[in-house]
Amino acid sequence: MASIEMIVAARARLRGHARRTPLLSSPFLDEIAGRRLLVKAECLQHSGSFKFRGGWSAVSGIDPELRKKGVIAFSSGNHAQGVALAALMHGIPSVIIMPSDAPKLKIANTRAFGAEVVLYDRANEDRDEIGAKLSAERGLTLIKPFDEPLVIAGQGTTGLEIAEQAEEEGVKNAEVLVPCGGGGLSSGIALALEASAPGFRVRPCEPENFDDTTRSLASGKIERNASLTGSICDAIVTPQPGNITFPILKRLAGQGVVVTDDEALRAVALAFSRLKIVVEPGGAVALAAALFHGDQLDSDTAIVVTSGGNIDADVFTTALERFG
Amino acid sequence: MASIEMIVAARARLRGHARRTPLLSSPFLDEIAGRRLLVKAECLQHSGSFKFRGGWSAVSGIDPELRKKGVIAFSSGNHAQGVALAALMHGIPSVIIMPSDAPKLKIANTRAFGAEVVLYDRANEDRDEIGAKLSAERGLTLIKPFDEPLVIAGQGTTGLEIAEQAEEEGVKNAEVLVPCGGGGLSSGIALALEASAPGFRVRPCEPENFDDTTRSLASGKIERNASLTGSICDAIVTPQPGNITFPILKRLAGQGVVVTDDEALRAVALAFSRLKIVVEPGGAVALAAALFHGDQLDSDTAIVVTSGGNIDADVFTTALERFG
Repeated sequence: MASIEMIVAARARLRGHARRTPLLSSPFLDEIAGRRLLVKAECLQHSGSFKFRGGWSAVSGIDPELRKKGVIAFSSGNHAQGVALAALMHGIPSVIIMPSDAPKLKIANTRAFGAEVVLYDRANEDRDEIGAKLSAERGLTLIKPFDEPLVIAGQGTTGLEIAEQAEEEGVKNAEVLVPCGGGGLSSGIALALEASAPGFRVRPCEPENFDDTTRSLASGKIERNASLTGSICDAIVTPQPGNITFPILKRLAGQGVVVTDDEALRAVALAFSRLKIVVEPGGAVALAAALFHGDQLDSDTAIVVTSGGNIDADVFTTALERFG
Repeated sequence: MASIEMIVAARARLRGHARRTPLLSSPFLDEIAGRRLLVKAECLQHSGSFKFRGGWSAVSGIDPELRKKGVIAFSSGNHAQGVALAALMHGIPSVIIMPSDAPKLKIANTRAFGAEVVLYDRANEDRDEIGAKLSAERGLTLIKPFDEPLVIAGQGTTGLEIAEQAEEEGVKNAEVLVPCGGGGLSSGIALALEASAPGFRVRPCEPENFDDTTRSLASGKIERNASLTGSICDAIVTPQPGNITFPILKRLAGQGVVVTDDEALRAVALAFSRLKIVVEPGGAVALAAALFHGDQLDSDTAIVVTSGGNIDADVFTTALERFG
């Protein structure tokens, strides 16, 4: 099981390797949100998303003899890049299984990080099955994207930083809005905050029609998404909450917040003009939730994680043309 | 005169108000540059550029009785926003004189920061004269954009941070490439590095046809630009180096590096895809210099300041469409 002790240990392994991303703000965004907003710009992390933390945590946590054989991961893109870069920096091989409709930039970057990329059809093939087979054949260690304690611990280091940085800003109570796919980042941050900032509460944020975590939190049991394609927020579309992550969220998180694709794109445009950061739609859903669904929040301060910035130029241009 | 003591004092006044911006990097950019690149992302500073440092330093350094009457500044936009935001945070009025062709976003933001904006014709009117007149009428304190010791001291705090952050990265020798208009940022950083990182040398970077500092450094005396309009790098177009800033640069800086508008736009696109930051063309000239004029550099590591991110959406979209 993931725990605060594992998160603290992951922080020690990540020191000097992961970036301590800044906590940004803008009076213009505060005005739209109707409360104070602090933005944890995790899109500035190595590999362009928080996934580098989990990737590094997992790769550095494997037994050295086993690690030499390499690692394998399946991912819509950000986990891929995080694991590939962590493997490259450890000098070991990586194999990444990616959906064939993943953004071109993510596929290209994953290859550039030295990974062997295996593409699959998101609608008709089972990535777990492909991963298990390759893993067995080559002796690779499978690094799951979220339902893996070492990965959750790595993502949780984001929460330790949020607690420290918010304290520097004098914030004692806040809702912490986190983009949520399988729940690795949300659950990791929730565990970190439980220990280090008890006045903070995680609120998972999801795109419309892919709100499995929000529905699962409402019903108290794991619910699945009806579809896995058709969202612009590709980075955070997963079949269902994880078996490890969901119980953590059920115990510690508040209700989910759901945003539309247009709201996510509007948040991308506002992050451009007001924060000077590049955020991908899936990474912008928590910012969109704070900006456009403030009626579902309680606290005077909302801390928002912008979890990734690996967006193709044409999608970014569309966001600016429509909402810039 | 500006001095390291003034920079250290400015750092104390800025503490808790200015942001310690991160030092970013990307293996993709290292590969293009042919050396290690570290990018000081000053576009993430409050108000979207380093100018907030100088604005805060100057406003906080004025005698309190005089300060109450307010401040006045003239600027192509970033100094305007920096001073306006610093004035707003001090609870005092500000008047900003801006060229009528400044980017729309900069004019709108300056007004949103509570400033009274006075527009003038960059080609036919003398902004110094307009500033002096308003200043005398209302008892406002004029905050010059660069040739003012308190402003240079504020910008120099960037250099103290660069020295600290580079040391954390194990860098002992480096060229520090800085976008250069009037020379406030370049000279402030040069003074800070002289004291705190003697193995570092500033290289001012400028856009083609507006290379007054590069030519001045070559000839040893202050040279003027032939024109003041027609560059996409509007933020760093000034008539000539300052009377205070130039002697500092002459003593401490290496040769200037000149880039084309297209190279600046290409750097904007690469900062988007590889660093996930939003940089305006003028703020990207040092990055462009490191990426495309590496033959003019000597050191294994180049530290680049991306000085501002206040770019209109249509210019950014153009950069991505042409070079993304």
